[in-house]
Order: sequence, then C-alpha cells, then structure tokens
Amino acid sequence: MSKITKVNAAILIIGNEILSGRTQDTNTSTLAVWLNSLGVQVNEVRVIPDIKKIIIETLNILRKNNDYVFTTGGIGPTHDDITAESVSEAFGLKYEIHQEAYKILESYYKSGEFNEGRQKMVWMPHNAELILNPTSGAPGFSVENVFCLPGVPSILKSMLGGLKQKIIGGDPILSHTISLRTIESEIANSLSKVQDHNKDVEIGSYPFFHAGKLGVSIVLRSENQSRINNCISQVLEFVKEKNIEIVDR
Amino acid sequence: MSKITKVNAAILIIGNEILSGRTQDTNTSTLAVWLNSLGVQVNEVRVIPDIKKIIIETLNILRKNNDYVFTTGGIGPTHDDITAESVSEAFGLKYEIHQEAYKILESYYKSGEFNEGRQKMVWMPHNAELILNPTSGAPGFSVENVFCLPGVPSILKSMLGGLKQKIIGGDPILSHTISLRTIESEIANSLSKVQDHNKDVEIGSYPFFHAGKLGVSIVLRSENQSRINNCISQVLEFVKEKNIEIVDR
Repeated sequence: MSKITKVNAAILIIGNEILSGRTQDTNTSTLAVWLNSLGVQVNEVRVIPDIKKIIIETLNILRKNNDYVFTTGGIGPTHDDITAESVSEAFGLKYEIHQEAYKILESYYKSGEFNEGRQKMVWMPHNAELILNPTSGAPGFSVENVFCLPGVPSILKSMLGGLKQKIIGGDPILSHTISLRTIESEIANSLSKVQDHNKDVEIGSYPFFHAGKLGVSIVLRSENQSRINNCISQVLEFVKEKNIEIVDR
Repeated sequence: MSKITKVNAAILIIGNEILSGRTQDTNTSTLAVWLNSLGVQVNEVRVIPDIKKIIIETLNILRKNNDYVFTTGGIGPTHDDITAESVSEAFGLKYEIHQEAYKILESYYKSGEFNEGRQKMVWMPHNAELILNPTSGAPGFSVENVFCLPGVPSILKSMLGGLKQKIIGGDPILSHTISLRTIESEIANSLSKVQDHNKDVEIGSYPFFHAGKLGVSIVLRSENQSRINNCISQVLEFVKEKNIEIVDR
C-alpha cells in the first residue's frame, strides 16, 4: 500500500473588522474548500488585528509549522493596509516597488488616475511573485510558502484560478456524508465504536435543523476511499439495527 | 482625565467542520459584537481541529494572554466532542460528573430518555460553573477565565443573556462609521494624516458595493468619544475639500 502524502496549510485573516464583529469572515470557508480540492488540509486559522508586530510574529510561527500559509486582507491602498510591509519584515526582505506590479497598475488605470494611494499597492517584499487579480487590477503576491490575498471575498475568489498551479497538494481529502433523521445522543455510542475501529478516518457528527425537522449529518473524511467505505458499511449497519431513517447518503 | 480600562478576550473555535470549509463560522461575529457591547475587545481568534493535545496547548496560551477566553464547539454527546475533557486537562482538574448539570438534564428529558450519550454532556472539569442553556438543556461551563459554549449558533446566542453578569468589561468601545461615495485610493492619503494625528483612535477603511454603487466606510473606534469626535471633524474636513458625497454619517 502506498504511503499517504499529507500537505497542510494555515489561514491568517488580518483585519480589525473581523475581530470587532463588524464584518463576517467568509474567506476561511472559501479557501478551505478550495484547498481541500487540491489535497491541502487546513490545520489552523487565526484572526489577528492590523498591528505589524503581531502580523510578523504570527506569520513567522505559521510559516514554519505549515506547508503553506494564506493571508487575507491588508493589501489595499489605505494606512491600515500593512500586510506587504509586515511580510517583508517577517522574511527580512526589502519593502520596495515591484516593477511588474507597477506596470500592471499603470496600464490598468486611465492616465492620471494612478495616484499615490494606488501606488502604495505596488510596494511588496523584494522579489515577491505576483498573484494576478482579474477583478480589480491590484495583484496579490507570494514569498516562499506564504500567499497574500485581498480581504474582499469576490476579489479573493477571482484570484484562486490563477494561483492553482502554484500549490502542490498531497493525496486528495475524500469525504462522504450520511444524513440521518435522528439526534446525536441516539447514535453517540454506536458512532464512537465506528471511530474506535477506524482511527485513520476523521468522523464528525453535526446536528442540523432543516424543513422543521432535526437530523444529524455524519461526515467521514480520509485520503483513502476504501477506509471511508468501511466506515459507511459500519454506520449503515447500526442505522439499520436502530431503524433510523436515512435522509441522504 | 480618568485612565481607560481595557479588557480583552480571545475566541477559540473548536471544530474540524470549520477547518474543512463545510460549515461557515458565524459565532466569532456574534461573540465579538456582544463582547464589544460589554467593553471587551477581541484580540485574537483561532480555529483548531478536534484534537485534544492541540486544544490543551492552545487554551493554555490563550488563557494566559487574555482576560477572557470563549470556546465554541465540542460540548455535545458524540465522540468528537472533547472540549470538556480537554479543558479539564488544561487546568489539571478532574473530569467528572457535574451534579447540578446532571440534575438539570435528568429533569429536562423524559423518563428513560437520559441515556448514556446524553449523560456524556454532564461530564465537566471539577467545580466548573454552569452556563445555562434555555434552548436545549445541556449547559456550557466556565473554569476561571475560560467560558465554554456550544457550536450551534442559535443555542450559543440563547446562552449569552445568562452569561452577561459574569463578564466584567472595561470602558465600552465606542464606534462611529462614516460612509462615503468614493474609492479608497482617493482618500488614502488624507485618512492616513487623520490617523497620524489621532494615534489612539483605531481608524479602519472598508470598501463596499451596495445598490450598484461603490463606496468606502470609515470606521472610527475608541473608548473615548471626544477623540472620536475629533476624528469625525477631521474626516469631514477633507471630505468637504474633495467634494465627496456623504452616504451616511
């Protein structure tokens, strides 16, 4: 049997607006689903304020502990956009005008519109690789295993297509969901036994409430389909014994 | 002038379902808005998997660095609910049946329905204080400065009312938003000057797209209303000079 290759990532959400509750983060979920599809598992997410010292410290921990780090937020034109400067310091690189980014934005804007505010967006760590932005011009960038994306969800989404070929994932993480018309406490013991017999499959149990009825979704995740299949059989066995209605499988 | 008292918190989201992207976290925003209203600023959010060692390590860092820690998730009846056990270990406390919680659930469920799965939910760290749950019976709990809440958003929300009197906040964090019909790069320099002159006010700039039109919201946050008022005047000054339309203030 071939060894399973695991590749992991951390997501670093930079922004006071998430910590104040003013803005609901959706980038975590977007990035996590996308990374899973590339065979990259998200190990950890952190949300931190727009404070340079904290960004640098956190980034230096995450980039050592993970194959990839994805940051969101703080790459716009205003004073609170300090991600590029912080990444430069974290890597000990010069923070400077990126010539290619400069050319992209110079031709993106009409003559005279490429003002000082916008020019801030071409300042990046020395030799950063650009992540192109098909929505609003200003590119993101990467340095080694750190990929810096904007905070605006629609712009972030539009940049993932161009980023895909830069990410080398491991074995894809497969997932299967069985939804049952039951409550967690009715199946807790049986499910616990299935988990004990299948330690290398991640088994999650999530209550749901849909169309006026309660239910539980059992989510089975692994890089190995046959191990997931084993779990499915064992779950269906106790579901049959207990005479539980299957909503979806 | 009286000294400003700052009180801070960390939020620890425990759950593989958030890291896989399957579930969109909304508890961060709920807790952050609620904490702000009590004069507690959220410094940091972390999302971590259902792995005991990681929960213990992360909790022990966060509870030392913050006045309060709020955890969400992992307090249900299934095998992947390991928050109470992990908190017990983090504090070096016995993980045991909580007599008061037992009585609550025993009378909550019909005779014969308080089964082994449900009984798991009354296992807590020794001497934990209960956080009552008006929605679904099973209480959360607190140990010292750590408050453990469920992951289901509607249940979590219903428990905050009863928790309020246990949180001692600092000076309330005041906030004022000015929404402008402009784009960030047009005001970046002027706003940066306002920030330079008002270092103790947190000034954020957030682009928005509403009803087919672009705009920028400037958010001013501080414990001191007169400092916010100073900033408002200075913002309105450059807004007038630049002839920018005010959408809302």
